[in-house]
Amino acid sequence: MSGYRFYQRVTGTYPHLSKLLIVCTISGGSLVAFSDASPFRGAYADHAGQVDVKKKKVVVLGTGWAGTSFLKNLKDPSYEVLVVSPRNYFAFTPLLPSVTNGTVEARSIVEPIRNIIRNKKYDAQFREAECYKIDTENKKVYCRSSQDTNFGGSEEFTVDYDYLVIAMGARANTFNTPGVEEHAHFLKEVDDAQRIRRSVIDCFERASLPNISEEERKRILHFVVVGGGPTGVEFAAELHDFVIEDLAKLYPILKEHVKITLLEAADHILNMFDKRITAFAEEKFARDGINLKTGSMVTKVSDKAISTKERATGETLSIPYGTIIWSTGIGTRPIVMDFMKQIGQSNRRVLATDEWLRVEGCENIYALGDCATINQRKVMEDIAAIFSKADKNNSGTLKVEDFKEVISDICERYPQVEIYLKKKQLKNFVNLLKNSEGEDELDIEKFKSSLSEVDTQMKNLPATAQVAAQQGAYLADCFNRMEVCERYPEGPLRFRGTGRHRFHAFRYKHFGQFAPLGGEQTAAELPGDWVSIGQSTQWLWYSVYASKLVSWRTRMLVISDWGRRFIFGRDSSRI
Amino acid sequence: MSGYRFYQRVTGTYPHLSKLLIVCTISGGSLVAFSDASPFRGAYADHAGQVDVKKKKVVVLGTGWAGTSFLKNLKDPSYEVLVVSPRNYFAFTPLLPSVTNGTVEARSIVEPIRNIIRNKKYDAQFREAECYKIDTENKKVYCRSSQDTNFGGSEEFTVDYDYLVIAMGARANTFNTPGVEEHAHFLKEVDDAQRIRRSVIDCFERASLPNISEEERKRILHFVVVGGGPTGVEFAAELHDFVIEDLAKLYPILKEHVKITLLEAADHILNMFDKRITAFAEEKFARDGINLKTGSMVTKVSDKAISTKERATGETLSIPYGTIIWSTGIGTRPIVMDFMKQIGQSNRRVLATDEWLRVEGCENIYALGDCATINQRKVMEDIAAIFSKADKNNSGTLKVEDFKEVISDICERYPQVEIYLKKKQLKNFVNLLKNSEGEDELDIEKFKSSLSEVDTQMKNLPATAQVAAQQGAYLADCFNRMEVCERYPEGPLRFRGTGRHRFHAFRYKHFGQFAPLGGEQTAAELPGDWVSIGQSTQWLWYSVYASKLVSWRTRMLVISDWGRRFIFGRDSSRI
Repeated sequence: MSGYRFYQRVTGTYPHLSKLLIVCTISGGSLVAFSDASPFRGAYADHAGQVDVKKKKVVVLGTGWAGTSFLKNLKDPSYEVLVVSPRNYFAFTPLLPSVTNGTVEARSIVEPIRNIIRNKKYDAQFREAECYKIDTENKKVYCRSSQDTNFGGSEEFTVDYDYLVIAMGARANTFNTPGVEEHAHFLKEVDDAQRIRRSVIDCFERASLPNISEEERKRILHFVVVGGGPTGVEFAAELHDFVIEDLAKLYPILKEHVKITLLEAADHILNMFDKRITAFAEEKFARDGINLKTGSMVTKVSDKAISTKERATGETLSIPYGTIIWSTGIGTRPIVMDFMKQIGQSNRRVLATDEWLRVEGCENIYALGDCATINQRKVMEDIAAIFSKADKNNSGTLKVEDFKEVISDICERYPQVEIYLKKKQLKNFVNLLKNSEGEDELDIEKFKSSLSEVDTQMKNLPATAQVAAQQGAYLADCFNRMEVCERYPEGPLRFRGTGRHRFHAFRYKHFGQFAPLGGEQTAAELPGDWVSIGQSTQWLWYSVYASKLVSWRTRMLVISDWGRRFIFGRDSSRI
Repeated sequence: MSGYRFYQRVTGTYPHLSKLLIVCTISGGSLVAFSDASPFRGAYADHAGQVDVKKKKVVVLGTGWAGTSFLKNLKDPSYEVLVVSPRNYFAFTPLLPSVTNGTVEARSIVEPIRNIIRNKKYDAQFREAECYKIDTENKKVYCRSSQDTNFGGSEEFTVDYDYLVIAMGARANTFNTPGVEEHAHFLKEVDDAQRIRRSVIDCFERASLPNISEEERKRILHFVVVGGGPTGVEFAAELHDFVIEDLAKLYPILKEHVKITLLEAADHILNMFDKRITAFAEEKFARDGINLKTGSMVTKVSDKAISTKERATGETLSIPYGTIIWSTGIGTRPIVMDFMKQIGQSNRRVLATDEWLRVEGCENIYALGDCATINQRKVMEDIAAIFSKADKNNSGTLKVEDFKEVISDICERYPQVEIYLKKKQLKNFVNLLKNSEGEDELDIEKFKSSLSEVDTQMKNLPATAQVAAQQGAYLADCFNRMEVCERYPEGPLRFRGTGRHRFHAFRYKHFGQFAPLGGEQTAAELPGDWVSIGQSTQWLWYSVYASKLVSWRTRMLVISDWGRRFIFGRDSSRI
């Protein structure tokens, strides 16, 4: 044990040594020097006390991808961090569909948040509680404990903050469809996945009882997934594998009664993916016998049937079901809604931040991950300011050459410009301006017209773990260099003000996306329009997910879970 | 996967090849012949149908140690077996205390019962349901489904039996102490262990909240274990390890507030063990700082305090607590109570069987494991019959030499005779008779007096997994040889009737018992009064438990759980 803990401490202090150490550690004791040289947190705290520096209080709400990524990347010891979340662990959510079918165990994908913040250079504490109110005026957060034990009701407390990081995630979106809240399973939390697993086994056990009619048996064994996004598709595919590979052996007479249906309101599943992937997935589902119904909108869910409206024919159907899994996207949490009302964002659907992840209209409050969206500034809103900034001598017209000084700032401040250029296959900004008229000099009107279509390229970032993790890391980096950047701002020009922004704006870098399709087949969309489908992609999926896991413990557990599944199959005990 | 499944099938058919195969399997494909030669269940069933043999219906209630052992050892294909249990898995209960603290995962110690009965030669089916009534007259069992899903209420059905095997286990015994049912955790089922685990983490999280007073924090972190048997002691020891080795690192400021108390009504803990073990355990607990209170009887449990009566002083104490674990032994389940009333055993506390595990007063009903107890016949009750059986010529007196013919039958029928001989250090039965008077000839009175103390040696078997498993195996063996033994009875002489009993009576063989004491220390009482304490015994414990696990899957999982604990410690995520 101590060997591993030592390794953890050393690599925590010198992350760049991590790879080296794996190789070196076999050679023995020569590494002790590193450990002794590492600045212990305790020692630092004492030192800080001596010089009487008042630490800035950072309160982080949430321990999902965004919050945890922030905590992992924060390094500056001048902060005092308090983490508040109803879950005392971080969960590797992309593996949740695997948990529902027992390919991976729930405990293998979670890591206690206290473990993550334990060896950090900053002081950190954790409270298992839910935030229920934010008081921006007095910089206070109101929390309520969430332990559901008989300790005499819930406990309430407030915490002060200097900086508040909101990373509370989202909830499942039911689109107010009646009956969904009561009857459907969601797939957001670890609890959900465990409940679904038990429910699947329940259905099989129930269907095994002798007095059940044939019709009832069919109903019980009808698993309906609503939503053809990557989560819904992966769940349907995993469930199919579970039934075929494992349950069919234990419940041989039930195999023929099992039916899996995937309902999608749009015309195709996996809309956000390349068409080739969609086509492959739809074909594979047809081959596997997974019943795919597109253009089908759920209007109501009762305890035994789902009502749908078919877009093509307009008719209403009633589909009997045993288990329903609802996976149609995300909605805003009530507490975030309340907060939005309070800060004057009530006309919006999601909490809006600027490009630096600061909540619009708030001081020192940041929001990231699924609970927020970046309200990207439009070029057209600032077009006059941009023009006048470039037109240093206020001549009213200016040469394209003059722009060269501010081009990079424009591109950074308005990323849509770059996307537009890429799409039009133009090499640079100057070409875009030249293109419009072929002239070398522009006035404001020509400038406007040349940029008029740029803003159409603005897109909201997808609500994925990848975005949340990058935002967390970005914000931590800003916090780490807060003082330096205050003195030496590194961001783009302030077109409407003077000087520069402190930080570079957040830029999302897309590393691709996987869509596991079951039967050791995975589809992947990688950067540069590269589409990869098949078993080799499944192995890529295994290796990427294993490497992305949050700790060596979870990594070992997930890999051994996969190994166990290969050798022994999935377990069907109802626990 | 297929490799393992093939191996499973081959070893299922030829269990004696199991060890050989582990070695040979590397050498490759030469084993395919075994597989082809194995008699498949399907093929057999067809054959049985042809000759139109009506199979005997065996209904097994329960999937604990006794029931599962019966199912594993039953081999005769002429039975049709139906298993009814509210749990669709077998749980390796001796590891439950390890599950409460995360040393071992819940799923690692369970095996689906369908997996266990899948490759058996007899036809077997499983129903996840609870038995709520037994109709002995019509040979029917009434069952109720136990899936807690919204499938429209519980489903009821009846099943017919030719033979009924009751192996429903017991429930925790509260001795009707008020408040126990509502506030205490038990440690009987896998669910219980998972709940305790969450509750322990809840206590630590609750105690971490800022507004909690010092006094309240102490209360929340006070873990009280009631009952100083092996389970209670092991749980207290494991919890102590969990706190010291893992939680202290994540909750450093709480460490000093944690208190573990073990309450025992008797004067010492581990009463059923050798005194040396008790002394060692009590010393170790004192050293570890586990608060041991003996002679302390719990009279009431409220939501925040336990009332006790101290036997030595007679005073009543009120002990504030955060979590209470109740482990004071077992009681009879309500359904078994009802059944006892119905068959005229209402004056008994536990369902009584004879030495062949047949329920007294019932035809073709067997009971084994914790739900039943063997009502051992007293020698004194049958003394006249025994005497007359030996006295072939009805002379009224007989020579000791004449007894030699029936000695072995007496010893088998009345095992207390053997125990008595061993205790008195007499070599055989003849010596016992001779001893009483020194004469060679006895009349009935002398015979009586020489055996008068024998019945004091009668003991009920302990309610352990070991007893239940042996009973299950014994009963399965009887079922396997039912026809043969009908024709050629192998049991002892019927002293009150004619001929012989069909089967040998059940004899429990004690292989020793472990008491894990935490900190890699275990005590063991092995056959032959051999007591072993220390770290080497812990390794013995590891190897015995690993070898006793029900399947290769669970074996691999438990061993990897142990390995994980050594390397990474226990997880403290609240899931």
